[in-house]
Amino acid sequence: MKLANRTIKTSESGLDALFAATSADVISFAGGYPDGQLFPTKAMQAAFNASFAADQGTLLQYGTTTGYTPLRQKIAARLNRLDGLSLTADDILLTQGAQQGLDLTARLLLNKGDGVVVEGPTYIGGLAAFDAYEPTYYEVPVQSDGLDLTSLKKVLLKHEIKFLYTIPDFHNPTGTVMSVEKRQALVQLANQFDFIILEDAPYRDLRYSGERIPPVKAFDTEGRVIYLGSFSKILAPSLRLGWLVATPALLKAITALKAGADVESSHLVAVAVDDYLTHNSLDAHLDTLKTSYAVKKDAMVQALTQYMPKAAHFNNPEGGFFLWLTLPEGFDTEKFMLESLLPEAKVSFVPSKNLFASKSVINGARLNFTNVSVEDIEHGVAALGSALSQALAQPISHHG
Amino acid sequence: MKLANRTIKTSESGLDALFAATSADVISFAGGYPDGQLFPTKAMQAAFNASFAADQGTLLQYGTTTGYTPLRQKIAARLNRLDGLSLTADDILLTQGAQQGLDLTARLLLNKGDGVVVEGPTYIGGLAAFDAYEPTYYEVPVQSDGLDLTSLKKVLLKHEIKFLYTIPDFHNPTGTVMSVEKRQALVQLANQFDFIILEDAPYRDLRYSGERIPPVKAFDTEGRVIYLGSFSKILAPSLRLGWLVATPALLKAITALKAGADVESSHLVAVAVDDYLTHNSLDAHLDTLKTSYAVKKDAMVQALTQYMPKAAHFNNPEGGFFLWLTLPEGFDTEKFMLESLLPEAKVSFVPSKNLFASKSVINGARLNFTNVSVEDIEHGVAALGSALSQALAQPISHHG
Repeated sequence: MKLANRTIKTSESGLDALFAATSADVISFAGGYPDGQLFPTKAMQAAFNASFAADQGTLLQYGTTTGYTPLRQKIAARLNRLDGLSLTADDILLTQGAQQGLDLTARLLLNKGDGVVVEGPTYIGGLAAFDAYEPTYYEVPVQSDGLDLTSLKKVLLKHEIKFLYTIPDFHNPTGTVMSVEKRQALVQLANQFDFIILEDAPYRDLRYSGERIPPVKAFDTEGRVIYLGSFSKILAPSLRLGWLVATPALLKAITALKAGADVESSHLVAVAVDDYLTHNSLDAHLDTLKTSYAVKKDAMVQALTQYMPKAAHFNNPEGGFFLWLTLPEGFDTEKFMLESLLPEAKVSFVPSKNLFASKSVINGARLNFTNVSVEDIEHGVAALGSALSQALAQPISHHG
Repeated sequence: MKLANRTIKTSESGLDALFAATSADVISFAGGYPDGQLFPTKAMQAAFNASFAADQGTLLQYGTTTGYTPLRQKIAARLNRLDGLSLTADDILLTQGAQQGLDLTARLLLNKGDGVVVEGPTYIGGLAAFDAYEPTYYEVPVQSDGLDLTSLKKVLLKHEIKFLYTIPDFHNPTGTVMSVEKRQALVQLANQFDFIILEDAPYRDLRYSGERIPPVKAFDTEGRVIYLGSFSKILAPSLRLGWLVATPALLKAITALKAGADVESSHLVAVAVDDYLTHNSLDAHLDTLKTSYAVKKDAMVQALTQYMPKAAHFNNPEGGFFLWLTLPEGFDTEKFMLESLLPEAKVSFVPSKNLFASKSVINGARLNFTNVSVEDIEHGVAALGSALSQALAQPISHHG
């Protein structure tokens, strides 16, 4: 019984070790979870209730693959209002979180071996989605203001690529934001070298300081940007509800692919979320999230400032879920976490290795601050600092 | 901007014409929808309410890719009780309806060009799911007692195949049931020729007459049967909740693929359905469905007996959603429906051509009876009979 090549590759992705790193007595900076205390549970219960109460026999039936039109209209209106886009419901497909948008875009574009540019590091679930279509990856470093365009141009001059995957706002895993200038230049490169930009923006609405800047999609002149949004981080992950923005022509092809993948997303959930958005202010809910997450982020930055050894470097992101820790070259954060930090200090993070398509960078770590209490952030970072100081005092070959 | 080969193929699948065939003034026998009047709306509303009321902060959070364990336990227990299987929750993955099970199985097994046996005719959404992985199809006819095993053996002697896709219970589109003897023989062939059987059973619990027979999975001796079930036809499609049964080793690989495709299915929906199953009798609900659908099926068979011209043949299935109409060889049911039946008689069905991977059989049609009133069944079949009699009186070259 021979499995497909993609399956063999996927089972080596290292996701297992990542998930195994979570247990009750561990302070986990590894997850990418929103704070469960902040879910709008009562309002969501009311929205489901109202949807059932108003039902005329269609709520539990099949809807359409594209998705419930009033909700798509609301999503379009919101993006138009906040980001200066001019979308209608016809530009939007409802998806199973943003994750399915990653799968469907790869499915739309990739034949085996086709070129894909990914950021280094990038979202591990992006690689998991794309891996199924067996692309050739070209990795471009992420700088403090986003993608390294000089490095990107070198790739584009040598290789044909189908799409470039980027998380421009509060990047997963580094927390960085791509500058406006780079967003504009990236679209120009896409036009010049004929590729699609896959813009993944699940954290976009979670800015704690600084000014909101337009999405890459706002600079799109030739319909080359496929934009992914999600309610997972701003309302609730278990809704499994995201959206994909593309030109109507691309959207038609993507919708046909989604029909083959899962027929459609839940009409019931779409109706309930539409009701929630009708009777509640998402902006007010976002203010609650941002106030709380900003406090946690500041607590983590303060603790890191206090407890990290001098050889460790970290950033102070303006939003999102994560910040990025860099240890000296040659220091293996995966080995450190699995052999020392997790079993002894009972703290976990996501080591950098599997966040690079190339698996070439071993000295970084992603730290989440949204789903940890301020107290645990302080204790966990203190324990991390102590364990790191000890490990760094040892000969580096032990960790290399 | 070049799309993937699969995308170009998918946009030619003919699904568009099928969906376009539905409008308000049409009596549609084309759909595959359950009767919206029979949804357990009140009980489902109560289940969502109870789930929200009992929530300790996890209901709206990420769950696991495998899915909510109590629900997987209930599904296992039900299959064990009714079908003599010996499953645990560890054998079950929750999916987005059975459709995602089709996608994930193809993703698990297929490299481009790999062999897949499909029934002729088969579920059009099966072909849409598999098409994404660019298989080589081998089509085996469906007889009144299921798959033609003589024809299958000829294929197996000549070609290596990865899996065989079958809908053994109340087959979509023909309504036939595979005999027990053929189920046993099919498993033996899978063992002998080293392939997976993908058993798709969304209609299995909807038997209106005759005795329930074991699923193919019950005869599985080497873990070669992947079994798909769904709540879409027995509770509600908009839950988007199905399940996949496989050996733990295969399930582990499939779960990793699902994580890349959409992270997980909705934890909220799984908890609510689990609550529904705790406080309601699914068997009692099924009795309601079966009583109503049996009346509709009988009404359709009676109307066909009364109104069909002699040259038309149809079957009388023991369960499910569909029966199958056969017109004389050379009669093109797609042309007939699009040019005459739909615009003039305002009746629609699913013509056979796109239900065959080979597109070689043009004289069949699938008729759905579950989502049409008894009155519309009588009127629609009368109109169909009249239009068919007229068309058959014309020289066949007009339709050929």
